[in-house]
Amino acid sequence: MPFIYHRTVRFQDTDAAGVLYFANVLKICHEAYEESLEASGIILKEFFTNPSVAYPIIHANVDFFRPITCGDKLKIRLIPQKLNEEKFEIDYEIIIADLVASKALTRHACIDTATRHKKQLPNVMNKWIQQYKFVPIF
Amino acid sequence: MPFIYHRTVRFQDTDAAGVLYFANVLKICHEAYEESLEASGIILKEFFTNPSVAYPIIHANVDFFRPITCGDKLKIRLIPQKLNEEKFEIDYEIIIADLVASKALTRHACIDTATRHKKQLPNVMNKWIQQYKFVPIF
Amino acid sequence: MPFIYHRTVRFQDTDAAGVLYFANVLKICHEAYEESLEASGIILKEFFTNPSVAYPIIHANVDFFRPITCGDKLKIRLIPQKLNEEKFEIDYEIIIADLVASKALTRHACIDTATRHKKQLPNVMNKWIQQYKFVPIF
Amino acid sequence: MPFIYHRTVRFQDTDAAGVLYFANVLKICHEAYEESLEASGIILKEFFTNPSVAYPIIHANVDFFRPITCGDKLKIRLIPQKLNEEKFEIDYEIIIADLVASKALTRHACIDTATRHKKQLPNVMNKWIQQYKFVPIF
Repeated sequence: MPFIYHRTVRFQDTDAAGVLYFANVLKICHEAYEESLEASGIILKEFFTNPSVAYPIIHANVDFFRPITCGDKLKIRLIPQKLNEEKFEIDYEIIIADLVASKALTRHACIDTATRHKKQLPNVMNKWIQQYKFVPIF
Repeated sequence: MPFIYHRTVRFQDTDAAGVLYFANVLKICHEAYEESLEASGIILKEFFTNPSVAYPIIHANVDFFRPITCGDKLKIRLIPQKLNEEKFEIDYEIIIADLVASKALTRHACIDTATRHKKQLPNVMNKWIQQYKFVPIF
Repeated sequence: MPFIYHRTVRFQDTDAAGVLYFANVLKICHEAYEESLEASGIILKEFFTNPSVAYPIIHANVDFFRPITCGDKLKIRLIPQKLNEEKFEIDYEIIIADLVASKALTRHACIDTATRHKKQLPNVMNKWIQQYKFVPIF
Repeated sequence: MPFIYHRTVRFQDTDAAGVLYFANVLKICHEAYEESLEASGIILKEFFTNPSVAYPIIHANVDFFRPITCGDKLKIRLIPQKLNEEKFEIDYEIIIADLVASKALTRHACIDTATRHKKQLPNVMNKWIQQYKFVPIF
């Protein structure tokens, strides 16, 4: 079951062209990621200041299909996927009134913050992936 | 009756000192302003792209009383006040678990966007001020 | 000849993990794009408020190879490439002390801002691409 | 002697009203602060990740006198002032073509990051203040 995050486009998200500044879509996607972690029972305060483990983004991409403007009511559909024992990625669809306005992806590595070497995903993250991952009906 | 806006502090709002980046408090206050306009029946999409009238901020200030960190659940208490026929200001209290973490203020002028001259506040703004302004009990 | 842009990583660019917030790399790349336009003789003020033509980003991606922190002296190497009469893309390498820390790409469509239909790249943009595009030595 | 910082207004700094988003002026002022520290011989990388001392902003304010738009060439004039042994503030003037477009101020406390108690300004900061502070001619 994907995680759904609702978000209004703010004035600060826009630029002088009158639309959402392109890089801010990725910020909104990261917000959806934070909300989904919290919904899964993870304490954000500890998650982002954990002294031993972090999940830096090693790749991100985004496609735009239609302009997004101030006041738009976005529905962000988030689906995580495990790539291997040390990596996962997240697919995001940014939807306005049932039309996909943008799609994005972030790929994360699990690292030991002291050594910055890759390490196995802990159970809380496996549980989060399990909770929101794509489950084919057939 | 003040307007109340709830907002979780996002990772993107923080800086390398591990706390909310100071200027981002003002962005969060502006979000509260946008939400209050919408709650008052104003269509944000039109409000910020209205060809004839705008409300640029001519002054802002902010005080910090305690650190604000990622994941904090903020309650922003917004109170507008009319200064004269062409100006209003907004007081913001940023509260975490009943403690005031920060206070801010934005002062706005009502201008004609074509000439950038000041003009009278329209009825929708007077109504919004009326709705959320401070009303002394005694 | 690629365009080179120098940029110090600012405190505001970082997050509570102590490193550059991932989406901010794309903001820095866009700064490099703006600087390259200006270096090519284009007036930014007019470019971004031109009533008839705009170059919205339709795709962007970014890869991270090493952490980037506050105070880092970045050298951004920008190379534009024409894709067809209505589209171009830009490759960015973000270099710290001769090591590539990140790579990014933005793909732009040329549109008529009134109709939002694609249109031919104007001469100023063709000249800019010509000036900074990749020229193989062999 | 005030410190002078030159900065072009970027597309990302603007909003859908076509002007500099108000809170971003404070970000630009903070950039000027960082540049002045560096010009004074301070290593930014260590300054913002120093385990024992930090200079959080406890107050900020900003006034706007004229609109600032994308591509504008800003000259920021920075003047620090010591308030007492544990506090300093910085005055900023944002100038476009010899006209003051905005004025801002940030007030900083010197704290021990472990206890978050106030402590005496270290020598490097006193030297920095000395270097750029206002010196009356008469």
